Amino acid sequence: MLHDVDFHALGRQACLRLLGRVRVGRIVYTRRALPAVLPVNFRLDADSSVVLRTSADSDLVRAVDGAVVAFEADEFDAAARSGWSVVVTGRADLVTDPAERERLARCGPDSWMPLRDGVFVRIAPDLVTGRRLSGM
Amino acid sequence: MLHDVDFHALGRQACLRLLGRVRVGRIVYTRRALPAVLPVNFRLDADSSVVLRTSADSDLVRAVDGAVVAFEADEFDAAARSGWSVVVTGRADLVTDPAERERLARCGPDSWMPLRDGVFVRIAPDLVTGRRLSGM
Repeated sequence: MLHDVDFHALGRQACLRLLGRVRVGRIVYTRRALPAVLPVNFRLDADSSVVLRTSADSDLVRAVDGAVVAFEADEFDAAARSGWSVVVTGRADLVTDPAERERLARCGPDSWMPLRDGVFVRIAPDLVTGRRLSGM
Repeated sequence: MLHDVDFHALGRQACLRLLGRVRVGRIVYTRRALPAVLPVNFRLDADSSVVLRTSADSDLVRAVDGAVVAFEADEFDAAARSGWSVVVTGRADLVTDPAERERLARCGPDSWMPLRDGVFVRIAPDLVTGRRLSGM
């Protein structure tokens, strides 16, 4: 057991600042009634929603469109036992508005997957929680 | 859209080797009917189960004991667009056997949280999947 570390809850604005400085997070959802998780690169949009790009015919899109998901990002230094973690929980929706799709195609996130039919998924930042771990 | 990266599915043994070299992963579960995710440090036990340590009266224990969860670990180099991700899916159970608890207290994972009443949770490696991403 450890008695030499501290956890601090982070406010929404601090969480969003941290999210804005990383490019990879993990979308957490339910697939065939089981918990599922997939690392993706993402972009924090101006309205604080999380936007990621994937394939239109992917399992991911089928599983998350219209569902409440969690999205997590973190940075940890295991040796120093310090770092932070932020979780955004909210409804995920395919971006269908053509103007919005065009804007995101210009300045939104890339996908690491080769995509023939890329679509954007937006996760509403309904609940934003986070914590910082400090080695002491 | 990107056309310059490759994903390779990883076999079970390759996944376990990668899991064995990191200390932090993320447990993915359901809490109050919503997807939830929490970074934790962990140890891969000799039987390939994932073991983590937490507080006996934690929300986490109440949510996962006896439930199927996912556990994810990864390492990514965002600049090089390379890395790997492994997911273990299986039933999580509190370790209740006294001899097993004693063994894990000697050589099992620490918790980053200060614990007054630490318990071990074991995740069975029923399904182990992973993929490697290679920048090209």
